[in-house]
Amino acid sequence: MAVTRLAAGVEYDGRAFHGWQRQRQAGLRTVQGEIEDALSRIAAQPVTVGCAGRTDAGVHALGQVIHFDTSAQRPARAWLLGTNSFLPADVKLNWVQPVPDDFHARYLATGRSYRYVVHNASSRSALWRHRAAEWPRPLDVERMNAAAAVLVGEHDFSSFRGKDCQAKSAVKLLRRLEVRRQGDWVTIDAEASGFLHNMVRNISGSLLAIGCGHRPVDWMAQVLASRQRAAAGETAPACGLYFLRADFPERFALPAPRPVSFPL
Amino acid sequence: MAVTRLAAGVEYDGRAFHGWQRQRQAGLRTVQGEIEDALSRIAAQPVTVGCAGRTDAGVHALGQVIHFDTSAQRPARAWLLGTNSFLPADVKLNWVQPVPDDFHARYLATGRSYRYVVHNASSRSALWRHRAAEWPRPLDVERMNAAAAVLVGEHDFSSFRGKDCQAKSAVKLLRRLEVRRQGDWVTIDAEASGFLHNMVRNISGSLLAIGCGHRPVDWMAQVLASRQRAAAGETAPACGLYFLRADFPERFALPAPRPVSFPL
Repeated sequence: MAVTRLAAGVEYDGRAFHGWQRQRQAGLRTVQGEIEDALSRIAAQPVTVGCAGRTDAGVHALGQVIHFDTSAQRPARAWLLGTNSFLPADVKLNWVQPVPDDFHARYLATGRSYRYVVHNASSRSALWRHRAAEWPRPLDVERMNAAAAVLVGEHDFSSFRGKDCQAKSAVKLLRRLEVRRQGDWVTIDAEASGFLHNMVRNISGSLLAIGCGHRPVDWMAQVLASRQRAAAGETAPACGLYFLRADFPERFALPAPRPVSFPL
Repeated sequence: MAVTRLAAGVEYDGRAFHGWQRQRQAGLRTVQGEIEDALSRIAAQPVTVGCAGRTDAGVHALGQVIHFDTSAQRPARAWLLGTNSFLPADVKLNWVQPVPDDFHARYLATGRSYRYVVHNASSRSALWRHRAAEWPRPLDVERMNAAAAVLVGEHDFSSFRGKDCQAKSAVKLLRRLEVRRQGDWVTIDAEASGFLHNMVRNISGSLLAIGCGHRPVDWMAQVLASRQRAAAGETAPACGLYFLRADFPERFALPAPRPVSFPL
């Protein structure tokens, strides 16, 4: 039977998941597990998915991209609506479409974008808890951006590499690292060819240490040069991290990421 | 002992509350109950609070305003930080300040503003569930605004009055009712001298019925004129409603409501 490859866009609230990756241990709820279970019901056969960026426990996603192969013949709309009807409330597909056989969510992604969201106020947010990291000490965004500029470009990011990282090389091309303030909110936008395990949260933790004056701006260059994880700041909490999108070559014609700002 | 009157700004996630108002029935968690318990611990004496707008179960608030009297002498900052340290994670005070004895959160509020948030897409939002109402059928914002214009001004709003409403008069001055779209989000902003019980959710339900074509635009004028609750649309779900702010005469010099948009 002919096998079709399909791609899909995935959104999830990471709070109640033990991360993206299916776990051997029973009872550990994962995004991959929920999606594979739902797709398998629609396909009436086992389905395995690959993703553009494996996220950790508690990390959210608006524009995760996956692919899967199946010999089941269904219209794209049936994959979308049917799978969503079987998915729990904290994960859903935003689109599904057939792709050429050589598409691969992980190996062909040319870039990934994350946003780290910080609530920077003397008292925590009641409405947006679990949605942002709390950082009560005032943050100086100019200092953070000065330190961020040091990291942009192709570097060995060993200092920001989580201990469980399985990447062969710690060299990554960080295309953009930008800190912005909107009222009590501080966001850190990171775009790269790819990221090491915990890299965005480790960079964010170091930027926060500089932003509140705990470390000087030029500390970031020392941290980067040391290639030692112990030299960098703490890992910022998972709840502030959002996987915004993955980019692919134009020939795959995947849907453009929609602006998704919550209107409040 | 001298009694001081204080005002405070309150933010809460309404999901896990049986509304604002303290209930006689034990075990019903309310915003008023949590705040009075926390303030009473700081004051070391019982504290009772009044609010600008009593919200229903599930309704959120960013700019609720309360006042309370106490003979306890504490700096404003101690009231703020101390009370927040005793409050659960889904409710907090944003500011506390002393006010003249004639201040009253309910009777002196000159206006109240609410926003109703609708996620208008064929599949529900995974990330913003409990934060917005889901309305899968496409909404025509122009139709909704044409119908909304009929309601602006001073009218008898009996058609949008909840059955438990205790207001003496159903006549209210609706200063603004505006529908906007941002991507998949549709917001309904309502500003009035005051609102009847369930009025914003009942108006929103009728606007949604018109927006999706279930009712004609000129149906709104009939609904308003009928003064019968049964003539209007369904009550829109509580999870989409946010109490944004209450306005008071300038002489009280309360903090201006901060722009609070979530940065995503």
